[in-house]
Amino acid sequence: MICSYLLVCVGNKHNSSVRAGLSSRTTSLEDPVVTAPGQYVTAEIASQPETWSRAVDLAAQVADRLPRTGERVAFVGCGTSWFVSQVLASWREAAGLGESDAFTATETPLRRSYDRIVTITRSGTTTEVIELLEQVKGRTPTVSLTADLNTPIVDAADEVIDLSFADETSVVQTRFATTALMLFRRQLGLVPDGIVDACRAAVEADLPERHVDAEQISFLGRGWSIGIANEAALKFRETSSSWAESYSAMEYRHGPISIAQPGRLTWVFGEAPAGLADQVAATGAEFVDHDLDPLVDLVLAQRVAVARALKLGGNPDEPRNLTRSVVLSS
Amino acid sequence: MICSYLLVCVGNKHNSSVRAGLSSRTTSLEDPVVTAPGQYVTAEIASQPETWSRAVDLAAQVADRLPRTGERVAFVGCGTSWFVSQVLASWREAAGLGESDAFTATETPLRRSYDRIVTITRSGTTTEVIELLEQVKGRTPTVSLTADLNTPIVDAADEVIDLSFADETSVVQTRFATTALMLFRRQLGLVPDGIVDACRAAVEADLPERHVDAEQISFLGRGWSIGIANEAALKFRETSSSWAESYSAMEYRHGPISIAQPGRLTWVFGEAPAGLADQVAATGAEFVDHDLDPLVDLVLAQRVAVARALKLGGNPDEPRNLTRSVVLSS
Repeated sequence: MICSYLLVCVGNKHNSSVRAGLSSRTTSLEDPVVTAPGQYVTAEIASQPETWSRAVDLAAQVADRLPRTGERVAFVGCGTSWFVSQVLASWREAAGLGESDAFTATETPLRRSYDRIVTITRSGTTTEVIELLEQVKGRTPTVSLTADLNTPIVDAADEVIDLSFADETSVVQTRFATTALMLFRRQLGLVPDGIVDACRAAVEADLPERHVDAEQISFLGRGWSIGIANEAALKFRETSSSWAESYSAMEYRHGPISIAQPGRLTWVFGEAPAGLADQVAATGAEFVDHDLDPLVDLVLAQRVAVARALKLGGNPDEPRNLTRSVVLSS
Repeated sequence: MICSYLLVCVGNKHNSSVRAGLSSRTTSLEDPVVTAPGQYVTAEIASQPETWSRAVDLAAQVADRLPRTGERVAFVGCGTSWFVSQVLASWREAAGLGESDAFTATETPLRRSYDRIVTITRSGTTTEVIELLEQVKGRTPTVSLTADLNTPIVDAADEVIDLSFADETSVVQTRFATTALMLFRRQLGLVPDGIVDACRAAVEADLPERHVDAEQISFLGRGWSIGIANEAALKFRETSSSWAESYSAMEYRHGPISIAQPGRLTWVFGEAPAGLADQVAATGAEFVDHDLDPLVDLVLAQRVAVARALKLGGNPDEPRNLTRSVVLSS
């Protein structure tokens, strides 16, 4: 479908309701809403140990809606949900469960034949995802993860998995994304022991001021942690309008390392390629390697991004130029 | 193969020989080499009308080494060659000639079955590419484009296509990449009329100072021009150590637009999504849409990157932290 697009903003929920952390309270539209900068995203980041636990518990209940072993699957999303898709596809294929690709909705090769399409849309309204699902309806089985069942996704997808317990007031995604990952991670049998406790420690850890102050960060990963690196970089751009990049860790030496210098960080998710730490050190940049599960390490990156936004005087709950969902009307 | 890597630098050819533009001259190692900053990359960029013409002429001669219609093909490269691979895969699949994926060598899913693997390595020495080819030898037919036949690629790949007429003295790739693209573009029947003349015009066009001075550039594309956008951003990082990003144009509204602001550019290769120009204008950033073939537009981006490096007092022939080829020894 080719449309002439106009952008219709689905506004930040601040305007109509207040939901902080995991609790909900009902307010009238007339309520004065006074918020501290970053209060929503901060509470949502802090709630991840709880939402991850709930996702792990949920996995068995929704197993019949998830891809079967051997199927060829496309995971599709936009923005953060694209990077979630990258992680899911990498996990599934590496586990030998079937070929798995990840695409942003508008770049999904519809000429190809997939056995199932899994979409991820927190808002349930993302135009490109809805249009993709309409195009494959009746042809390819689809399932979507969403945080809002009162949206077009419910009709557009054949099946829906409800992650509304991980919905967010924030424009930027944190817990919805990581919770969706934990749901599949459990289903794939890939949840490491103690990860919820590790997440709790990451939520409470002190953050080095020099990371918050870094002029630039390059996030690196390998395999599934490339998607984590992409998400960390997007979080920095969205939350603090900062310069952040992301790459395959093995690609970094093929060009992007050229920007490394003192005052900048090269942050590796998961195992770093041998030799890279020394090569980065030679540029004067700091090599950050926390030796944590990449999903737990992402929580630290989320927190550094928010801390940086606050230090720069911004409000990470109100990222520039962004709305909670991109809805395009033809 | 899992190795413990050490980096061995394959140095900039400046150290041992001088080759500028399309001409070669033999020098002894003792010759004093006096170069103006950026003289190599400038000459190589300017030579693209000639190397593109040669690639078009060459296509028919090497047709028997290129993928057959219907084959499932993986295009593989590192750095700029990865982005060349992205463009080739997109062209081929969109033309209905068979499923086509692009990977950086270390992230190629070897569990999958491809009918043919096409690798691109200017130097012929890139460790990750050589190792990949060794792993699939005798199992999957392979062909590699290279600019140097006196290298390990000749034994590692089943077939080689010689693009040494487009080799470069520069560390950063310009004409080798675009010439490799033109070879396949001709083979796929996708060469637009007049493109060599358009390239010549791009080589000679005046560059707006405000583009050279831009604090940051986000390059966007759709379909095959996403690979072009990725290459343009890499060129900026490598050549001038500048802040440049790249995305799918339809992804840009899902987060990355948050960094757009006055003094920054959003540069679209190929057709821009409707409505995006106005949305970018609202951020104060300049929307750059040249209405050129994306490959021709890339020539302008190469030139802006070099002009920026020179204006900042750098030497784009000597990018920081980089070598002409990344050779890792186990």
